[in-house]
Amino acid sequence: MITEAGTARFDELSLDCGTTLAPVEVAYESYGELNRDRSNAILALHAFSGDAHAAGEGGWWNSMIGPGKAFDTDRYFVLCSNVLGGCRGTTGPGSINPETGCPWAMTFPSVSIADMVRLQKKLIDHLGIERLLAVAGGSMGGMQALEWAVTYPESVAAALPIATTARHSAQQIAFNEVGRQAIMADPDWCNGNYYSGKPPGRGLSVARMVGHITYMSDESMREKFGRRLRKPDQFEVESYLQYRGSKFVDRFDANSYIYITRAMDSFDLTQAGSRGSLASLFETVRTRFLVISFTSDWLYPSYQSQEIVSALRSRNCDVAYCNLESRYGHDAFLVEVDEQTDLVRGFLASTFKENAARA
Amino acid sequence: MITEAGTARFDELSLDCGTTLAPVEVAYESYGELNRDRSNAILALHAFSGDAHAAGEGGWWNSMIGPGKAFDTDRYFVLCSNVLGGCRGTTGPGSINPETGCPWAMTFPSVSIADMVRLQKKLIDHLGIERLLAVAGGSMGGMQALEWAVTYPESVAAALPIATTARHSAQQIAFNEVGRQAIMADPDWCNGNYYSGKPPGRGLSVARMVGHITYMSDESMREKFGRRLRKPDQFEVESYLQYRGSKFVDRFDANSYIYITRAMDSFDLTQAGSRGSLASLFETVRTRFLVISFTSDWLYPSYQSQEIVSALRSRNCDVAYCNLESRYGHDAFLVEVDEQTDLVRGFLASTFKENAARA
Repeated sequence: MITEAGTARFDELSLDCGTTLAPVEVAYESYGELNRDRSNAILALHAFSGDAHAAGEGGWWNSMIGPGKAFDTDRYFVLCSNVLGGCRGTTGPGSINPETGCPWAMTFPSVSIADMVRLQKKLIDHLGIERLLAVAGGSMGGMQALEWAVTYPESVAAALPIATTARHSAQQIAFNEVGRQAIMADPDWCNGNYYSGKPPGRGLSVARMVGHITYMSDESMREKFGRRLRKPDQFEVESYLQYRGSKFVDRFDANSYIYITRAMDSFDLTQAGSRGSLASLFETVRTRFLVISFTSDWLYPSYQSQEIVSALRSRNCDVAYCNLESRYGHDAFLVEVDEQTDLVRGFLASTFKENAARA
Repeated sequence: MITEAGTARFDELSLDCGTTLAPVEVAYESYGELNRDRSNAILALHAFSGDAHAAGEGGWWNSMIGPGKAFDTDRYFVLCSNVLGGCRGTTGPGSINPETGCPWAMTFPSVSIADMVRLQKKLIDHLGIERLLAVAGGSMGGMQALEWAVTYPESVAAALPIATTARHSAQQIAFNEVGRQAIMADPDWCNGNYYSGKPPGRGLSVARMVGHITYMSDESMREKFGRRLRKPDQFEVESYLQYRGSKFVDRFDANSYIYITRAMDSFDLTQAGSRGSLASLFETVRTRFLVISFTSDWLYPSYQSQEIVSALRSRNCDVAYCNLESRYGHDAFLVEVDEQTDLVRGFLASTFKENAARA
């Protein structure tokens, strides 16, 4: 598999909040080869804590992207970039503010899911790709897929929003807020100005622990840990959460946690600009959809995907929907490879064929 | 309603961990009057963050305990005591260790649900009550009700375990562990030695925020908050959680949070002593049961109550079970007054009648 990694730099990016970020950098990786007419490009969109490293060893969607896999790199050119506000190569609160020479920290402008997508569009343009074969992602990646289809309908042949929603519920906002409060309660956070010192690792670790509970189902936690003890006074599930929390601190920036979760919470597909209901939004959308949800996902429950599907159907959009049976909760979009592979492979093949006929 | 409040002091209490606590105090309140043959006493058992103040203004179960209410104080003598390990008048980690003259803090011995019940039994004996008409409580109160029926079958005519479980699942342990880690991550916690200084309020507040999310259902959060904003950059649900978190700090001790959640997590009705399966446990139990769960309670899901009911039925125990339709999640046991009142009133009346016939 031909793999490339790079960083693109743009003079500026206008944000929903009214600010212009100048300059802005975006870290990306690509897998496979762009064909001659540039019609085989797929943009993989990472979830909250992911990054541009989608495939290859340690890649967050390595089970799905590669030669012969769902997103088959022998046929498609798969691209993934780190989101705006992130901490893995793309401009975010940990980047240097050129006007001060210091990290932006909490003076970084607030970013939205639409801003993330606008930066991805710049990257696609920069790479000379006029129209993407598909945009695909789970969780926050799915929000971006929806935003792509609505904002750039001519630039996306197909969208695969997986285990996602058109807007966060109060419960989803609440879990994110606990994470933010845990970070901000850590004295090492220092109002975000910790880059020259110790990061707020204890707070960030607690935030991540909450996250991990919400990513699993009651059933998958029972299967994986049950009430087994690790030590006489420690359950296995406690030690697992502590471990995952502490590992997260090594790879993630606490301020990015705050900015990106806020972008997710603020995201409401129907509220941006002059948009109306979810259904009226899809009026002009000609993108094909494959929507996937998972039965045991209680963080992004199936009813949220079904809302999207109903709205698409009410406007005669081309939409396939699968509520896959799974025990794995929200993690299913990363774990349930076999059934997703079948669905995605067929959907991409027919999109490619239709797209070729169109051209 | 005749209300009394008091504190009983006992020379010692043996604990499951092997330690003997000496002396030990227990704060209690009572509502109504004990009848001549002392056959109308009901023990109300509070949940994790409750206390002895069950009825009257601000009482945690005031909607259910009082004249003409479900636990009718015109007919019954209702008693409630603060649990061992608590911080509202009963001996706990914030109490003074008589050997050192300083607060116990984290040197307080670990306590179990069975220890809490053993102390309640001492209180009942002290008040001259040989046999309780009923023990009743939701959540951790329900665990105590189960423990009462199994440990003192001759002393309890009826048990009402509500929205509870015979043992915590990995997910329930996980949520408690997040709370504990949030407290212990707060530098003001000082390994528990904060009684002469500032309590770990930020950590305790984050812990409580997590709790509140788990007490509500997705639906009740949507109804109560939706995506409504409190300020341009703050959702109502965020402000609510922050408020509830900060208020909790004024009335609850962080070390009690750690000790009591550990008691809940360790509780396993089938594991104490020489006990076997849940069913075999109930072999000698002659207590009548009314088990109640709520459809939208995802913290103590109905299947956990149904496990208890199946075990009781397999041993021909007298058990009534209701899975009440509710939108309110785990909070339902405090909020769904009407249907619970009907159930509880009828169940207590028939128990009283049966009990009188027996005597």
